[in-house]
Amino acid sequence: MASERLLKDIEFIVELDKMKSILRQTTLIDKSRRENDAEHSWHISVMAMVLSEYANERVDLFKVIKMLLVHDLVEIYAGDTFCYDKKGNSDKKERELKAADKIFGMLSEDKAIEMRELWDEFEEMKTKEALFAASMDRLQPIFSNYFSGGGTWTKFGITKAEVHKRVAPLEKSSTELWEFTLKLIDDAVDRGYISDTPVLS
Amino acid sequence: MASERLLKDIEFIVELDKMKSILRQTTLIDKSRRENDAEHSWHISVMAMVLSEYANERVDLFKVIKMLLVHDLVEIYAGDTFCYDKKGNSDKKERELKAADKIFGMLSEDKAIEMRELWDEFEEMKTKEALFAASMDRLQPIFSNYFSGGGTWTKFGITKAEVHKRVAPLEKSSTELWEFTLKLIDDAVDRGYISDTPVLS
Repeated sequence: MASERLLKDIEFIVELDKMKSILRQTTLIDKSRRENDAEHSWHISVMAMVLSEYANERVDLFKVIKMLLVHDLVEIYAGDTFCYDKKGNSDKKERELKAADKIFGMLSEDKAIEMRELWDEFEEMKTKEALFAASMDRLQPIFSNYFSGGGTWTKFGITKAEVHKRVAPLEKSSTELWEFTLKLIDDAVDRGYISDTPVLS
Repeated sequence: MASERLLKDIEFIVELDKMKSILRQTTLIDKSRRENDAEHSWHISVMAMVLSEYANERVDLFKVIKMLLVHDLVEIYAGDTFCYDKKGNSDKKERELKAADKIFGMLSEDKAIEMRELWDEFEEMKTKEALFAASMDRLQPIFSNYFSGGGTWTKFGITKAEVHKRVAPLEKSSTELWEFTLKLIDDAVDRGYISDTPVLS
């Protein structure tokens, strides 16, 4: 007979399949459909492999990747909350904390604690690894929007100030990527993908 | 201006988006659609996090995960070759080697070499990390087929001997997972998901 520990692991792995059906607002670059959480998590994990050399301070890439692989698991129950949705974000934390108890609680205690710690660290965004991981998470939809010709920026009328605020963790984690991204955002404004409405008008 | 090195990285990252449109034969467990390479790569990377404790010999999990994240990138150009497709597998190696030159060649030389080495090691399946990574890659569709009620096993009339052969790397990498999987396969035969036709009949 398989151990109870292994059976819990298998049930958890089967449950993870649901990540493939949690849709984000962002579309694929070819605009064929909306992206899901599983493929997003993969993309930002490879991005971290490719871009970690640009981090201002050397990061523990293994930890960054583990964080990125599990950072959206709570959305299996809490759903994806669009980053520019003010109403959805008002109770996001509460919904996600409940979801974290449920999804990580499927595992044996030591494993549940390890994964929960990764998620907590990611959410708190204090360590250099969490900041770099958050930067990848926020940079990827910028690429999707830019290279698909506007994406959710255009669809939801997002302003330059909102995009800057969203991608702010990058300023702390990588000067080179931050400067590149600022130029990309300016170019997106020039192309009419992002509106440049002054905050006070 | 961004460095040439960074521009290459960004082009590579944008190209990776195509992984989300490379379809595998396996469906999601809820049978709603076929799985793509990006979400598959994510799923097996988290599986490795959860299951590495069952490896017979301690594996370098960081390396295993990096291998799994990039193991299917060649399929952006070579397409997914169904593991039980004899014709497709006859020229798979040649197609994938060409694709590897193309996709890894997008990166600066040092990075291209690093990723290519990960892919080569995975493909050669000699180190304990490569064997464990291959085991995850082959175990995941077993779960998908079993928990979706037959999946590609039933659709393509796959035999027990074929499934055993496919998942063979697991026998070397983890006795506990191998024994569990053999029971799962036997149960799938009992349920009529897999045919048990003798090789000589």
